[in-house]
Amino acid sequence: MRLRNNPEALDHLKDHGDIVYINPEGMKGKWHSCFESQDAPLYIEIGMGKGDFILENARRYPDINFIGMEKFTTVLDKALKKALKEGMPKNLIFLKDDAVRLPELFENGELDRIYLNFSDPWPKSRHAKRRLTYPSFLELYKNALKKQGEMIFKTDNRNLFEYSLVTFANNGFVFEDVCLDLHHQEGYEDNIQTEYERKFSKNGPIYRLAVRVKGEENG
Amino acid sequence: MRLRNNPEALDHLKDHGDIVYINPEGMKGKWHSCFESQDAPLYIEIGMGKGDFILENARRYPDINFIGMEKFTTVLDKALKKALKEGMPKNLIFLKDDAVRLPELFENGELDRIYLNFSDPWPKSRHAKRRLTYPSFLELYKNALKKQGEMIFKTDNRNLFEYSLVTFANNGFVFEDVCLDLHHQEGYEDNIQTEYERKFSKNGPIYRLAVRVKGEENG
Repeated sequence: MRLRNNPEALDHLKDHGDIVYINPEGMKGKWHSCFESQDAPLYIEIGMGKGDFILENARRYPDINFIGMEKFTTVLDKALKKALKEGMPKNLIFLKDDAVRLPELFENGELDRIYLNFSDPWPKSRHAKRRLTYPSFLELYKNALKKQGEMIFKTDNRNLFEYSLVTFANNGFVFEDVCLDLHHQEGYEDNIQTEYERKFSKNGPIYRLAVRVKGEENG
Repeated sequence: MRLRNNPEALDHLKDHGDIVYINPEGMKGKWHSCFESQDAPLYIEIGMGKGDFILENARRYPDINFIGMEKFTTVLDKALKKALKEGMPKNLIFLKDDAVRLPELFENGELDRIYLNFSDPWPKSRHAKRRLTYPSFLELYKNALKKQGEMIFKTDNRNLFEYSLVTFANNGFVFEDVCLDLHHQEGYEDNIQTEYERKFSKNGPIYRLAVRVKGEENG
């Protein structure tokens, strides 16, 4: 999500260097050290937007460590302001960076779960490489995730979901669960909505895919 | 699809032994001999119902050989009567049998494509083994299909489609294409509707999955 650029946003992020990491170097393999519970699982949301989803996750699951990642400065600052106002959970940090930098940011197997929520659909074929479920991105996720590590992907964009079912199926992930109408299906009452999801779910179904990295036993 | 049993139906099928094979023995590996073009690809629809789909396929694609398979006598007889009335294409035969008998009916790699259309959803978990996309059925299909052979699956049942995306993805098929609203998506104008599809598509989306058997090159 883009917002008009706010020149004060970057300064504000820098003022909170204890909880906001801006294009960090040297953190690879060391993210656990940012948290009180260093043995807890580590979940990340790539492209967290204004942060409603990751903030509510962090509150609801205090025994898991969370990273909210967002590449746009102004958007990330919105999330930071919200978190500061509502109270920043101790098990949450923010990361300003781009998904293409995952290999520089995370050690192989450092993450337990990756969330992708309502990623930009990039509908034109010539922009397919920019979709966050394009095969080269899936390779980055697989490397950053533990064996058997999970990804959970939600979108309201039918064509992006169709595309992503194909790329996940064909690039080394095991399907755990598919839901083609998340808000009208029993069993998903614990779904945490993003700000976008609350606004647009009335227009049509929300799609959800849960996968995990293929391990030895499900080769 | 079940219809009330009609005792005359089986006799009528037997009267047309040149085009209707009833629980045949000894046909394994020899289906091509039933057709004029013995080198043509061989496509089958498992559970063809009243046969609209396979009949229209046979008319539209004269260079492909088709088998319409149906286990219910009375239903198959409806398809036969329709075909006789409209003219039975030379590249179509009917097979009265059950999908569990595929290993007795077809040699490994004998089929080029399998169609599953609007299969019984068997919604209760304890009946999952009866679903035609249950993993043990997928094993039968993989064996009967050539390497790189295709399956095309259509349904209007959301839960069956969600279930089937998972079983196909996790049991040795490569995804070629997913469509979550077949009747409202460009590029599927050549879709041939079943009688059920024509009747019920107004109630909600038709889902379609195209997969192929994993070969060496897509391991």
